[in-house]
Amino acid sequence: MSQDFASVGQQFAKFYYEKFDSDRSQLAPLYRDFSMLTFEGQPFQGTQAIIEKLTSLSFQKVAHQVSSMDVQPSSDGKILVHVCGFLQVDGGENHLPYNQVFQLVPEGSTYYVLNDMFRLNLA
Amino acid sequence: MSQDFASVGQQFAKFYYEKFDSDRSQLAPLYRDFSMLTFEGQPFQGTQAIIEKLTSLSFQKVAHQVSSMDVQPSSDGKILVHVCGFLQVDGGENHLPYNQVFQLVPEGSTYYVLNDMFRLNLA
Repeated sequence: MSQDFASVGQQFAKFYYEKFDSDRSQLAPLYRDFSMLTFEGQPFQGTQAIIEKLTSLSFQKVAHQVSSMDVQPSSDGKILVHVCGFLQVDGGENHLPYNQVFQLVPEGSTYYVLNDMFRLNLA
Repeated sequence: MSQDFASVGQQFAKFYYEKFDSDRSQLAPLYRDFSMLTFEGQPFQGTQAIIEKLTSLSFQKVAHQVSSMDVQPSSDGKILVHVCGFLQVDGGENHLPYNQVFQLVPEGSTYYVLNDMFRLNLA
């Protein structure tokens, strides 16, 4: 297992959450029309449906804090990323635990998101 | 997105955790020599290394309780499974939250595990 996939995963997550926390409509270029998002069990497919879901989330301000990230290579240069962390919503005191899984697919010199699965860990 | 992948993912997780909770050495046939496990951030590759890790975990008795499972198709018939749940260890009162990601690869009439990432969510 080379270490390259790990730095790709880390750079992706840093970029993704920075965009998400500043202007999540800017995440559109990361998805394709066959990309899938499962958000709290609800399925969405395609850039438009995914971005509509993400931008319709009711909070005004959000900050992701990553506590662990695991990265593994998949087949054909794909990369799996598993993030555990906390969400701070609208500047509140609560830090909500969440989990997110991405599968990244190489395309030219960059990667797009084929799979995206998000869950809050609310006991 | 067909629904077949969802039932494969559900059947896999049921089988996997039943074996894990009864005799985890029996999980060996699910892995291959190129399979990867990241367990609490520690990487293992290959059936032998993975099973050695799983069987060396210090608890005697464990029960997995799945609280949510998301399943998505990946490329070439592969299937991504994201499980959130709780672990009850050695019959104790504590139910430890965990997350696990699997990528399943079709092989003949069955599937093997290419990717496996496990995390306890200890805040």
